[in-house]
Amino acid sequence: MTRRRRCGEFEGIARYFAPLARAYPFAFGLRDDAALLRLRAGEDAVVTSDAMVAGVHFFPDDAPDLVAAKLLRTNLSDLAAKGARPIGYQLVTAWSAQTGEDWMAAFARGLAGEQRRYAVALMGGDTVATPGPASFAITAIGRVRRGAMIRRSGARAGQDIYVSGHIGDAHLGLLLRRGDFRLERDKVSARYLLRRHQLPEPRLVLGRALVGLASAAVDVSDGLLADLGHICEASGVGARVELMALPISRQALRAMALAPATRLALASGGDDYEICFTAPRAVRERIVRLSARLGLPLTRIGAVIRGTGVEAIGADGSAIRVDQTGYRHF
Amino acid sequence: MTRRRRCGEFEGIARYFAPLARAYPFAFGLRDDAALLRLRAGEDAVVTSDAMVAGVHFFPDDAPDLVAAKLLRTNLSDLAAKGARPIGYQLVTAWSAQTGEDWMAAFARGLAGEQRRYAVALMGGDTVATPGPASFAITAIGRVRRGAMIRRSGARAGQDIYVSGHIGDAHLGLLLRRGDFRLERDKVSARYLLRRHQLPEPRLVLGRALVGLASAAVDVSDGLLADLGHICEASGVGARVELMALPISRQALRAMALAPATRLALASGGDDYEICFTAPRAVRERIVRLSARLGLPLTRIGAVIRGTGVEAIGADGSAIRVDQTGYRHF
Repeated sequence: MTRRRRCGEFEGIARYFAPLARAYPFAFGLRDDAALLRLRAGEDAVVTSDAMVAGVHFFPDDAPDLVAAKLLRTNLSDLAAKGARPIGYQLVTAWSAQTGEDWMAAFARGLAGEQRRYAVALMGGDTVATPGPASFAITAIGRVRRGAMIRRSGARAGQDIYVSGHIGDAHLGLLLRRGDFRLERDKVSARYLLRRHQLPEPRLVLGRALVGLASAAVDVSDGLLADLGHICEASGVGARVELMALPISRQALRAMALAPATRLALASGGDDYEICFTAPRAVRERIVRLSARLGLPLTRIGAVIRGTGVEAIGADGSAIRVDQTGYRHF
Repeated sequence: MTRRRRCGEFEGIARYFAPLARAYPFAFGLRDDAALLRLRAGEDAVVTSDAMVAGVHFFPDDAPDLVAAKLLRTNLSDLAAKGARPIGYQLVTAWSAQTGEDWMAAFARGLAGEQRRYAVALMGGDTVATPGPASFAITAIGRVRRGAMIRRSGARAGQDIYVSGHIGDAHLGLLLRRGDFRLERDKVSARYLLRRHQLPEPRLVLGRALVGLASAAVDVSDGLLADLGHICEASGVGARVELMALPISRQALRAMALAPATRLALASGGDDYEICFTAPRAVRERIVRLSARLGLPLTRIGAVIRGTGVEAIGADGSAIRVDQTGYRHF
């Protein structure tokens, strides 16, 4: 409306963000308007975007480095579920009056740490100012062997449904963070659950190992049952999940004694960033061995069935039909 | 903070946006979490991002289809300056209370029209709600022959500086839109200038033709002199621009009789989305022929010199040193 990009406000940006692009030579030190992406012969790129708004997707008083880390990790988690290896990311930042230079510097430091951890680098992006809350979007790009990307649409009736790690920690962490309950006599569990909410672990190694094993996969961001519903929708099948089979961490089990959260709530809560996948019965043993090799639980939680939608089976055998209309994403 | 993506608010989205992805088979109807990007052998991808915030980069009462068109075109303009052919784009939208379903539908219609015009398609993205002003970001992806991307860093002392089309129309259009002056007795020119501000024309055909001709290129978004400054910075050279050589449209010349805008202001105003490029003297004739073939003015406006920064030469031969610190972008 005035100028598209105005400085003064952005004097620090080159200082904080250009170093993040050093590990990606085709970012040209952020001095060009675009980055180059070069794939090896026989590779496809995988592209995914995720955004966060202050006060909506994170608390305005969350530590900036954790906000940055979570934003990047949610994107890497999408790549993980596709079996892709991360290459780099575009970052679009809308800074507010609340995110001053210290905040910006800490945000960039958070990204720097994550880049080292996941061998990924900033490729480019855009920076604007907003009179509203700060918001951040990442478009992450990864690589897979040509044709090897794991889709959502390959689930078939009769196949098994698995989920990695534990489900519900992040939901309990959110309830703790919001003050919906307390764990004063078990601070170790409380810290663990909060951490699982604030800093998910993208299952990149698992995702790559699932290429050729999983028939469909999704990362659990909206909630296990909702995301499994996305697989069902894309594959034209239904799913039956045994709530008692869900992998619940011992910290979550302890918290559930006090928290206003059932197993169904844990399976509906978001932000787990585990991978839910389907696979034919013939590979059960390979999946058991994979779990052992990775030191990561891969738990069989149900079966793909004919029909549509997700059914959650309770401890007493009663079936709860999960409504899919509550969540949507594009 | 609550759920990462929550529906109800977003019920219409699949309806409005999924059709935009139909032309891109690897978007999987937006039913997957990621899109696939497959390049042909011997191709590189070019990746660029641009964002817009309501009340900052566009007027809240601007027509939604024009907002969408401008957002996409500013991204395509970046690809044009790199010599790239657009493939597709990721769209991240943060909807506000002001952008209800009608607004959203018109925004999507605007994108649909642009997609047909530029043979580009929606690949994927993310959708969030914000309590602040609406904002939109696109990450556009194009393709170039491997190694053919036009960089900012290839300008050398002694080369010519060119700009396409006309400079300053968009700046005058902005002044008109803001009510800074009026053109009541020349409504045709007024409409033309407003249009140039609201709906830039990405110079995609020119950009591709410049591969092998231009030594460096940039699209004029921050303002001709500022963007030329980016070429200088990346190339380690200076630039001298003759203000009297600038291509000014006859509509702009008429407006300048009334508008509070000098030639220097036009060269500093943003949003032209023309391409400024440098080229060796040896190709002068080829550039004249290219201009004739495209029916698009390609005007020689100055020379690359040793040193740093941009000097604008006035009608009386006086040199104005252009301060580069006013704008920055990453």
